[in-house]
Amino acid sequence: MTTRGRRPAGSGTREAIADEARRQFGERGYTGTTLRSVATGAGVDPKLVLHYFGSKQGLFAQTVELPLAPELILERVFAGGPDQVAARAAALMVSVMEDEAGRRAFTGMLRAAVSEPEAAEAIREVLTTRLLMPIAERVGGDRPDLRASLMATQIVGLAMARHIVGIPPLVAASRAQLIAALVPVLEHYLRGDWVMETDPADG
Amino acid sequence: MTTRGRRPAGSGTREAIADEARRQFGERGYTGTTLRSVATGAGVDPKLVLHYFGSKQGLFAQTVELPLAPELILERVFAGGPDQVAARAAALMVSVMEDEAGRRAFTGMLRAAVSEPEAAEAIREVLTTRLLMPIAERVGGDRPDLRASLMATQIVGLAMARHIVGIPPLVAASRAQLIAALVPVLEHYLRGDWVMETDPADG
Repeated sequence: MTTRGRRPAGSGTREAIADEARRQFGERGYTGTTLRSVATGAGVDPKLVLHYFGSKQGLFAQTVELPLAPELILERVFAGGPDQVAARAAALMVSVMEDEAGRRAFTGMLRAAVSEPEAAEAIREVLTTRLLMPIAERVGGDRPDLRASLMATQIVGLAMARHIVGIPPLVAASRAQLIAALVPVLEHYLRGDWVMETDPADG
Repeated sequence: MTTRGRRPAGSGTREAIADEARRQFGERGYTGTTLRSVATGAGVDPKLVLHYFGSKQGLFAQTVELPLAPELILERVFAGGPDQVAARAAALMVSVMEDEAGRRAFTGMLRAAVSEPEAAEAIREVLTTRLLMPIAERVGGDRPDLRASLMATQIVGLAMARHIVGIPPLVAASRAQLIAALVPVLEHYLRGDWVMETDPADG
């Protein structure tokens, strides 16, 4: 929906820049995207990009997003009641990654994270703090922070292994097969009885 | 143990180049390493690097390695008998990643994989084909290829989330806590009863 052609500063311009940045970070990665390329794509003066976002890092941190808004994901994940959370989270994760735009947004975040600390911070913030922590807190186990973080390992790992490294049996697996394998893992991280009461790291 | 200073072609030279390449890919990543920088570090003419490895991609594919040889890992993982495989694999994975050289080698592979198809291929080959497939085959479940690949998602995901993205509760977690959380997951992937007999993807 980005309007091409030069536009003046003001209402809508910041959002047009953000849309274009999201698209370019997803398609070209962090390194392949520049303030100038975003400005050109959005039809604005590069100075406006700087004005609104301060730097390329700022542009990334403020525009990168999960394929769906965390609030919407939360609503869907809890729609079947608390017992269905792991099943719905697994199904949602697999289907978002099978959607081209969703896959591009998420793998773009991961690609950027390996070279840019700001992108790594964005993943921590969006995936863990805004999405997985609220899920773990609402399910109600102890150490929701650790549970959310371990869920993140599985989500990040599936995206990396299937969509970036491209391990053939994962690429070939059906959505149903992946969900069947993943649900017990997310359930284990969410509710399993593995939290150590006297973790040496806490001492 | 790399000897500095120019050395002639011949015995030991290929290995000296490989050692230097491994070190540089680990420390600087794929993009930050060049044929010239490896040649300089190994004290050889850049033409010799080309002679032995053909290209930067060839150099990477032929020198990247797991922190431990797959055969040695297999031996350790099965040393406690088949029931201990998941526990030993989890312990070994966590301790290798807490060793600086091991962590550097593995995160170096992952960093390279996001930008270089050759590096992704090296991960598929070394981690999945040479290491995890033999483990899954020896344990003996159906679909060892899918089981090995799902183990890879968890291993890759932990390395990414803990050591590249740096999610704080994972960084702070003790080795014992991580192992307690991970063992049932590896056990599930290795032996769990979740393989669909009529996976739509097989049809």
